[in-house]
Amino acid sequence: MNSLSEALLKGDLRALSRTLSLVEDRRGDYLEILEELYRLAGKAKIIGVTGPPGAGKSTLVDRLIRHYHGKGLRVGVVAVDPSSAFSGGAILGDRVRMQDWATVEGVFIRSMATRGHMGGLAAATNDALVVLDAAGFEVILVETVGVGQDEVDIIREADTVLLVLVPGMGDDVQALKAGVMEIADVFVINKADREGVERVERELSQMLALAPDDSPAPPVVKTIATTGEGIDELAAAVEEVHSTERPEALLRRRDLERHRHRFMKLLSERFMDRFLTRCTTEEELERLFEALADREVDPYSLVESVLDMVPWAEVCGSVIRRPGS
Amino acid sequence: MNSLSEALLKGDLRALSRTLSLVEDRRGDYLEILEELYRLAGKAKIIGVTGPPGAGKSTLVDRLIRHYHGKGLRVGVVAVDPSSAFSGGAILGDRVRMQDWATVEGVFIRSMATRGHMGGLAAATNDALVVLDAAGFEVILVETVGVGQDEVDIIREADTVLLVLVPGMGDDVQALKAGVMEIADVFVINKADREGVERVERELSQMLALAPDDSPAPPVVKTIATTGEGIDELAAAVEEVHSTERPEALLRRRDLERHRHRFMKLLSERFMDRFLTRCTTEEELERLFEALADREVDPYSLVESVLDMVPWAEVCGSVIRRPGS
Repeated sequence: MNSLSEALLKGDLRALSRTLSLVEDRRGDYLEILEELYRLAGKAKIIGVTGPPGAGKSTLVDRLIRHYHGKGLRVGVVAVDPSSAFSGGAILGDRVRMQDWATVEGVFIRSMATRGHMGGLAAATNDALVVLDAAGFEVILVETVGVGQDEVDIIREADTVLLVLVPGMGDDVQALKAGVMEIADVFVINKADREGVERVERELSQMLALAPDDSPAPPVVKTIATTGEGIDELAAAVEEVHSTERPEALLRRRDLERHRHRFMKLLSERFMDRFLTRCTTEEELERLFEALADREVDPYSLVESVLDMVPWAEVCGSVIRRPGS
Repeated sequence: MNSLSEALLKGDLRALSRTLSLVEDRRGDYLEILEELYRLAGKAKIIGVTGPPGAGKSTLVDRLIRHYHGKGLRVGVVAVDPSSAFSGGAILGDRVRMQDWATVEGVFIRSMATRGHMGGLAAATNDALVVLDAAGFEVILVETVGVGQDEVDIIREADTVLLVLVPGMGDDVQALKAGVMEIADVFVINKADREGVERVERELSQMLALAPDDSPAPPVVKTIATTGEGIDELAAAVEEVHSTERPEALLRRRDLERHRHRFMKLLSERFMDRFLTRCTTEEELERLFEALADREVDPYSLVESVLDMVPWAEVCGSVIRRPGS
């Protein structure tokens, strides 16, 4: 076994941090480590928290850490941080609050930054969940901002997805429809002491009434994260959704969907990685892109001619044989 | 030549619409058509318009259509529309305004919806630009919402990227840092008659001062799209950025970057498409994902074993030989 995995499984937090860095940067023995850890993962309860900026997600996550930590559970947090080369770092000052947990035993918080790597943030974040899960964290909170495809890809890895709304969002509730409404299991109306709470509730229930789904309507919980009000009810709703509300078959379907997405992302990322590392020097690539820019060659037929070289029968054989073997 | 491409090149708008549908849905002869059209494209001036919801992008696009159409240019518009299975359609009522152009000769407007297809919206949108470009539209406006990776991938196809801000955005200017600030060529402060315009300007110039780039600072233009104020200045700024401000080498670098992204997206999309269509029946896939969900096999070593089957030397040879041949 890789020495990092070994140390991490014994509870060495520095080994855990180093492993997460390798996974995030896609370097070193990260694939070997993930292969080893994957079979040990699958036990944690993964809770995704998403919603627009300013909805109070970080404060809510802070409260949830407190809740689960108070129950004696080991809590891991992955805060997905849209940073950029331009700003050079994290956006959300809110997350400073999370630093308070840095020295608390049984709580581990990790920020993941949007990097430019192929495969994107979603693959790296999903793999970080595998690591934390194998490392024995019983509850893992994943926090993302926004409703882009990346965020949806990340949050769909969660067993339960909380979508956090706030009064006064106006038409932004509409905008949330795109992508993220479908995957929410519990709706949270945070800052529920503010004016406009009835309006958000009404808009939300109107939208939920439109859902074509035949599964039960997701619960709506009101919270005031700054005071902690509603957090116990929220945790109970998460429990409920996990246990009784959803039929076994539905959970299995969702689990399979998740594994499908993860496998596809990984295959695509690793294919591109191998293509870039094995095929081409920077100079060759440069020549290729120049030919494309000058329209000496079109990318469509070039790509097809590349893929014609792949022995699909063998490739397919290796996938289909494997699981049964 | 494909009969659709032929009709489209003769100016048949129904052929153009049908081609765009094939490209968007990745079906029919879409690859063959794109191969044919690619070499004819590369002449249009592509202007990307992005920014947060509510910034007035659609009104601004409407004004820009009017401006370029008034100069006798053929104008194409691709409005990227984050829709969802849940809501079943477009979000932005604003775009109804664009319908006014439907019957105007020399203006063609197309909405692209976020679909679930592999390769995502970015690949399909980029290819739609190739089609409109080859069809002879001299100015193409691409409008997207938001700052996700998908939107950045789309908007980076543009020759000039306009980032639209509004007074009263507060901390949201901060949030825009993520990804999209780096690729903006012109900053637009729309609704410039509103209170708070100085504050947005100040925050913007503070952020621009932090830019590590040694290229000239991008222009900032104030507009009131509803009245048309500032639109001529905006068009002049776009012209400026295109012609004098940017050194030739910088433009070439950006063009190569664009072709790199497009090629990589396409290769990844087509690899996954072939994998899914050639390798597996739905049943086989189901078995595979069950084995993954039950952790009988880990996805990491499975993916590597699949990629070990690819004859990289041949694959690489076919790429590198091609452009020179």
